Amino acid sequence: MTTPSYLTDQDLADLAFGAAVLGTGGGGDPYIGRLLAQQAVSEYGPVELVGLDQVGDDALVLPVAMMGAPTVMVEKIPGRDDLQAVVRMVEARLGRKATHLVPIEAGGINSLIPVAAAAQMRLPLVDADGMGRAFPELQMVLPTIGGLSATPMALADDKGNSVVLDTVDNVWTERLARTVTIEMGCSSVLSNYPLEGALAQDNLVGGSLSLCREIGSQVRAARERHHDPVDAALGVVDGTRLFTGKVVDVSRRTAGGFARGSATLTGTGEHEGSTLELQFQNEHLVATVDGVVRAVVPDLICMFEAESAAPITTEGLRYGLRAVVSAVPCDPRWQSAAGLSLVGPSAFGLDVEHRPIASAAAEGA
Amino acid sequence: MTTPSYLTDQDLADLAFGAAVLGTGGGGDPYIGRLLAQQAVSEYGPVELVGLDQVGDDALVLPVAMMGAPTVMVEKIPGRDDLQAVVRMVEARLGRKATHLVPIEAGGINSLIPVAAAAQMRLPLVDADGMGRAFPELQMVLPTIGGLSATPMALADDKGNSVVLDTVDNVWTERLARTVTIEMGCSSVLSNYPLEGALAQDNLVGGSLSLCREIGSQVRAARERHHDPVDAALGVVDGTRLFTGKVVDVSRRTAGGFARGSATLTGTGEHEGSTLELQFQNEHLVATVDGVVRAVVPDLICMFEAESAAPITTEGLRYGLRAVVSAVPCDPRWQSAAGLSLVGPSAFGLDVEHRPIASAAAEGA
Repeated sequence: MTTPSYLTDQDLADLAFGAAVLGTGGGGDPYIGRLLAQQAVSEYGPVELVGLDQVGDDALVLPVAMMGAPTVMVEKIPGRDDLQAVVRMVEARLGRKATHLVPIEAGGINSLIPVAAAAQMRLPLVDADGMGRAFPELQMVLPTIGGLSATPMALADDKGNSVVLDTVDNVWTERLARTVTIEMGCSSVLSNYPLEGALAQDNLVGGSLSLCREIGSQVRAARERHHDPVDAALGVVDGTRLFTGKVVDVSRRTAGGFARGSATLTGTGEHEGSTLELQFQNEHLVATVDGVVRAVVPDLICMFEAESAAPITTEGLRYGLRAVVSAVPCDPRWQSAAGLSLVGPSAFGLDVEHRPIASAAAEGA
Repeated sequence: MTTPSYLTDQDLADLAFGAAVLGTGGGGDPYIGRLLAQQAVSEYGPVELVGLDQVGDDALVLPVAMMGAPTVMVEKIPGRDDLQAVVRMVEARLGRKATHLVPIEAGGINSLIPVAAAAQMRLPLVDADGMGRAFPELQMVLPTIGGLSATPMALADDKGNSVVLDTVDNVWTERLARTVTIEMGCSSVLSNYPLEGALAQDNLVGGSLSLCREIGSQVRAARERHHDPVDAALGVVDGTRLFTGKVVDVSRRTAGGFARGSATLTGTGEHEGSTLELQFQNEHLVATVDGVVRAVVPDLICMFEAESAAPITTEGLRYGLRAVVSAVPCDPRWQSAAGLSLVGPSAFGLDVEHRPIASAAAEGA
């Protein structure tokens, strides 16, 4: 049983670092989210982090997040009242007050946005998330596999427009919310997947914010001790180095409300002469080395700046970056048939067979 | 003061005919709406038609309508509970029950949809509408000139998805509702512009349903007496014949959620040797004879089948139709600066100077 704790300023910095790692290139650079969270905490006081197993059955847990293309999200910061507004809209529809907030993804800006909202609303934050990483589409969360609805969902833009959705399934939630978000300027804030306490316990990944914080903390410690910070990060998440090299090509476009594209790295050191190809849709989807798939969704493909271990987001990809590309196993529930159907390669239109990361690592050894 | 009356089956047929005339080619063929209304009346009983001046100040008047491309709307009939559902959603948001329903446009299917809803919900229907004709975009109603908000607005599709919008202005309502409607399959049902009784009186066109019914009734009488039915219709609405001819070309596409296009007619009889060009966006926007603009929005361009006076909708336009094209003056409030800014030629991207229909008729004489 986790003891409730309060997130310090250092915690938020560590958490933002780890969230960028689990963001697998997507979710938006958490730097903006960290600033929002730190400002909210300094204004309203610290946020209590509550273990998933400490959430009562009668709790109402509301996720709060941003939606859109990370390329746009990092330039459009939510207004101070926007996050509260979407939570209040869902509360109004349910006729109940939220008892806790929670991130819907453990990755990128959306790990920090709920911290800012929790400080503003003086609500505890659940140490959990809906996927154990970042995914680009709304239906791609464990609650969908659990048969839970993403709606009622509230969506708002920076101008003051808002939308409350009720949909027949979570793919329709994604379709309607995406088209609204695009019209709103490719960025919105939202609250969806309202979860009763018992359902939250069964349908979220517990401990994911602590995990993010631990990644950040271990990398910080390694840097102080002049140890390899990439090794430190991979040690926390059971990650495997796939490739070390230099970014030589990036193709990126904002299409259908997503940041889509690909990147090419040429190997250095032990990977001299090899080429790695990455494809992404907000998040990295597949990593191919010399034509062989080495990692693919739902497993995590995490990219670090080689020296500093700074996580590289897909919108931060640029020519000349020296990078380590690694693979991290996903939450085991994503390896089920239902999980793969929702977030496996075919869900992204990839004609790639899924093999869990362990066997990919074994093959590579 | 109008005496409340109940709409008979014959009234609905006449009303549908007149609504197709005031639809100025758009608003969707009211045949479907008439069937829906007649079925609802036969099942739930007749609908009381109430004069606009009889609506009390404390009334809550809710419009209900369909949105989308008429080409799609006429093939996707609202489910029996969809109309009630959107009204209930707006009521829930306002915390008040509707006392009356009203059409938002006097033209096409949207003049009949509220009859069906009023029968189902056992509510009186106000003899009025928001524009005195049909227009293709949500903000193009007199309440917008009156500074009233289109939201809270509820929108639903045939699958069971629904959306409640709150927007900063009525152009944003149009933008978000349009993109949602397109995603829903180019057709939706909606309730918007909730109006308190006093505001309804000041911001609607009174008597427009009676006017539609009178058009239908007079045309029916003229046919029975072997008089010219087109003359009978034009007599009711103070319309002017612009052109008699044959449709020789139609170009039509469903783009941005609208039925857009143009048609060409070659003259017959007194117009032998002349050519009329029509441009439309759901509704007819401009009629040009031999290069001279003869009628343009916000005035009504009404097209009749020459022999029967059957109104021709833009989606019903086809090669070979023998037609009379006529111009009908719009509600005088549309001739104000605010009115022309909202629904004049420039609002449709037309580089055409607006001249009210009277002077166009004088010039043509």
